[in-house]
Amino acid sequence: MIEIEGARAVTGAAQGTTHATTLPRTYYLSPATFESEAERILFRQWTFVAHDSQLPGPGDFVVDEIAGESIIVVRDGSGDVHAFFNVCRHRGFRFCEQPQGHTTRFTCPYHRWSYGPDGRLRNVPGSPDGELLDYSEWGLVPAHVERWHGFLFVALAEAAPAPLSPALDLLGADMLPARPERIALAFRESYEVRANWKILLENYPECYHCPGQHPELCSSMALDAMYATTEGWEGAYLGGSTPLKPGHLTISRDGGLVSTPLGDFADLDVLTSGLGGGFMIVPFLTRIICHVDHVIVHVVRPIDAGRTRWVTHWYVNDRAVAGVDYDVDELTHVWRTTNRQDVALCEGAQLGVASRRYLPGPLHPQRESAVAAALDVYRELMDATP
Amino acid sequence: MIEIEGARAVTGAAQGTTHATTLPRTYYLSPATFESEAERILFRQWTFVAHDSQLPGPGDFVVDEIAGESIIVVRDGSGDVHAFFNVCRHRGFRFCEQPQGHTTRFTCPYHRWSYGPDGRLRNVPGSPDGELLDYSEWGLVPAHVERWHGFLFVALAEAAPAPLSPALDLLGADMLPARPERIALAFRESYEVRANWKILLENYPECYHCPGQHPELCSSMALDAMYATTEGWEGAYLGGSTPLKPGHLTISRDGGLVSTPLGDFADLDVLTSGLGGGFMIVPFLTRIICHVDHVIVHVVRPIDAGRTRWVTHWYVNDRAVAGVDYDVDELTHVWRTTNRQDVALCEGAQLGVASRRYLPGPLHPQRESAVAAALDVYRELMDATP
Amino acid sequence: MIEIEGARAVTGAAQGTTHATTLPRTYYLSPATFESEAERILFRQWTFVAHDSQLPGPGDFVVDEIAGESIIVVRDGSGDVHAFFNVCRHRGFRFCEQPQGHTTRFTCPYHRWSYGPDGRLRNVPGSPDGELLDYSEWGLVPAHVERWHGFLFVALAEAAPAPLSPALDLLGADMLPARPERIALAFRESYEVRANWKILLENYPECYHCPGQHPELCSSMALDAMYATTEGWEGAYLGGSTPLKPGHLTISRDGGLVSTPLGDFADLDVLTSGLGGGFMIVPFLTRIICHVDHVIVHVVRPIDAGRTRWVTHWYVNDRAVAGVDYDVDELTHVWRTTNRQDVALCEGAQLGVASRRYLPGPLHPQRESAVAAALDVYRELMDATP
Repeated sequence: MIEIEGARAVTGAAQGTTHATTLPRTYYLSPATFESEAERILFRQWTFVAHDSQLPGPGDFVVDEIAGESIIVVRDGSGDVHAFFNVCRHRGFRFCEQPQGHTTRFTCPYHRWSYGPDGRLRNVPGSPDGELLDYSEWGLVPAHVERWHGFLFVALAEAAPAPLSPALDLLGADMLPARPERIALAFRESYEVRANWKILLENYPECYHCPGQHPELCSSMALDAMYATTEGWEGAYLGGSTPLKPGHLTISRDGGLVSTPLGDFADLDVLTSGLGGGFMIVPFLTRIICHVDHVIVHVVRPIDAGRTRWVTHWYVNDRAVAGVDYDVDELTHVWRTTNRQDVALCEGAQLGVASRRYLPGPLHPQRESAVAAALDVYRELMDATP
Repeated sequence: MIEIEGARAVTGAAQGTTHATTLPRTYYLSPATFESEAERILFRQWTFVAHDSQLPGPGDFVVDEIAGESIIVVRDGSGDVHAFFNVCRHRGFRFCEQPQGHTTRFTCPYHRWSYGPDGRLRNVPGSPDGELLDYSEWGLVPAHVERWHGFLFVALAEAAPAPLSPALDLLGADMLPARPERIALAFRESYEVRANWKILLENYPECYHCPGQHPELCSSMALDAMYATTEGWEGAYLGGSTPLKPGHLTISRDGGLVSTPLGDFADLDVLTSGLGGGFMIVPFLTRIICHVDHVIVHVVRPIDAGRTRWVTHWYVNDRAVAGVDYDVDELTHVWRTTNRQDVALCEGAQLGVASRRYLPGPLHPQRESAVAAALDVYRELMDATP
Repeated sequence: MIEIEGARAVTGAAQGTTHATTLPRTYYLSPATFESEAERILFRQWTFVAHDSQLPGPGDFVVDEIAGESIIVVRDGSGDVHAFFNVCRHRGFRFCEQPQGHTTRFTCPYHRWSYGPDGRLRNVPGSPDGELLDYSEWGLVPAHVERWHGFLFVALAEAAPAPLSPALDLLGADMLPARPERIALAFRESYEVRANWKILLENYPECYHCPGQHPELCSSMALDAMYATTEGWEGAYLGGSTPLKPGHLTISRDGGLVSTPLGDFADLDVLTSGLGGGFMIVPFLTRIICHVDHVIVHVVRPIDAGRTRWVTHWYVNDRAVAGVDYDVDELTHVWRTTNRQDVALCEGAQLGVASRRYLPGPLHPQRESAVAAALDVYRELMDATP
């Protein structure tokens, strides 16, 4: 068992208050901690990987890098979606080099072992099934897959985590009128950040830093309502509604629509108010935000103790046509700008927590309560017997 | 307690002589040793950081990087100089990005916590003093500051080292006619060297290598007198006079003056001889050399086990005007050239000590005695109970 | 003693077969394992370093980097060849910066200590022999050198490995008609590969991957005969004949000669068949391949746990003239092409074995038997008491 020394809370002299705090320095720096996190958290929590619409037909696949692992998500001939480690069972070769594509068979280029979209070993040159090897024992190593209204999640550990649906059915209920099964990817952008992934975890679910740093985001978002929303959050699944200012229908440059309305919203004669539904999984952060005209999915992709990739996806109505129904620049403007600002903030925070005289700092009980909640789950998962 | 295995001295067969030696290989390579050195030496010794004249008024500040720590040195409204770790107490953010400047308040850009030039917490958005936090408990983490005739030194450990003045009053006495309080920075140059900082420590205080490597420096410096001077040095504060050849008034291309004479020397009708006053602090090397017309300050800035920054400052009479009373190229020529030569030497030495068959080598009892003295202090500090 | 956990063999359900396997993940990643390998294998096995003809006269030298160590191979005045660590005994300086050259004395540029081509200390400025130092105690640290028909091998450990000749006399017998003493270097190329050196070791001695990956090599090489040849190999010295297809005289674009025939082959009126003689040393791989008109020598040069340099030398008849008797592009075409292909394969394999879910895979008993043999020797050397 790993015990996290101290720093869970500090007691201030002012009125005997106790503050939740950030983590001790070593948690943001240590490669050994990172390896421990991989097995205890990054392999064990569900993380969003793609939407069903990204692999519509049999043999369609996408590849993602999760906790440094290359993972293939592929649809087989019967329509089932599988996920596999991109590691040939023969010599370990990373056989799939494309980020996405279509294939009826994955053939490792090294010695030409081949596998089906269901992960089964199909052919080994010079070694017919059953002669030297029983093919059924040498299939690709699988990861777990779950689907929630078209969103695909994977988990890499041998044992599957608890199912997603009970939590998401509750927290994502206000998204359902948008019919999230019927969306399509419009844009995806990723950023390599020179910071530990928990610096991003601490940055994202709070808007205490927004007024000074994110003017574009604050132009549509109702900050005080946001503070009220996040207070009291706890657990690995967090409600994540993003309240909008009166008169704003979506997150955009001016609060006006940036694409065709989604699902049931398309049937309304007049849209009178926006939507900021969605939810968050912590600490291995996935955040889905659903507006009336587009859906945003953010995920963190830890690389090593000091580097993290941040990936944002923008989905629109699957009947919307780029250049006609939406303009990619307008659709993505606010969050692309916000992401760039956050990268700089996270890198500045990483520099500071690396100081030998950094100490965990106090989190604001209202404005940073979601950070405290996320770190509580982090501590529980790290403390648990593996 | 850390014990340094063997290699303090080797006994030669020739006449039963015993030689002081360089360190075992691991001392030049190990990240763990570097971390130990940070707490035992680099945080505990005084190191030169700036001259008073670089922060003349209230709110003026300079930032330096010491042992990987970003340190702000700032003058407050009452004229006192403070030093602080560049780490916000809230989330650890490295809030000050400028290398120098002027401000009445340091505001962390992340969540807009702000601090005065005295380090006190002044404002936390959404958290008035005494409500959630008692501001007096959340000031910036301080470092210690000492001044010696205008030279500012800092020390990063919680406990202040012994005062500088007893040692410097003795060793720096021959500098005082130059009135070191009345100098100003003319130029500053730094070099990132791919070598452990102790390779630089072993290079700098000896001139055994000068004849073959530093023709520009040797044109003014009296080498035999230099050997005689350094012999017998011991302790953390070393006399560092730099004897000049007859007819040379300063270190320069031809031995002639390169700026307005300093202090009392300006009042002399005729300058008939040079001055090479100064001193050295080891092993966390600061070297100050005072000539009749300029002062040079060298410092080492260890970055990690394999990289070190070497910084050289040139100061002149504070009434001297660039382009009129001195030419920066002429002023800095000899040491800029010498520094580049030393960078190459240190990098060549680092390559060699990384060999698995490198063994500590014998130091010449006269020509490298200051290196032996510096390494003795190094060993004492590393051996001491922290 | 280091024990290699498990994974030496896996038992398949198919007919109760047991397969030799690749190594566990940590062997391809761990810096600590790499350091252990340096002392147990890379310092203790003979590795090819140069051919006699590359240092024909007294004072001629070449420098190579072996397991991160810079090694000088030099001929002294009496014609003997020595090898030394490029580390001055004074301060460890890497004194020889040229990759090859001629000198009567190596003078360290730092403090001008000098050494003869026999490694003896010749002069120390300010320290005559016997006064402070007995020069005989401070010579360069030697490595061992052996010669086999003009090929020079070095070993870096203090104790010399068993002599090469018994094994090479047997395995290299079919090379002797080519008179390998009378060859000269025509070309040398090296590649830095982002892979552990054992990934290269596992790639090189098998041709299971050749059909899909090396069309240029397969156009001349007789693959089935190659499989037959390597089966049953064992021990550190492996026969390495490279059988050619009927009608192919050498490895070249079309199987035709690419240089003047070597040795006794030059005296034949008609050359009717090729030659693929040679041998291999494993696991610290040296491979020598002798054809009728040129000799190829491949060596691995491990840099650290994740990087390896692969070096290939092409030798021709020492009377052959470039541009007249051979064209460098034609001579080197097949192996330069093949090397580039192998670099990509090794880097893809390294990515895969770094996965936390990689497991050692089964080696084909016929087509990868030489890999199994090489890994057996590797395991023996790592398990042995040092």
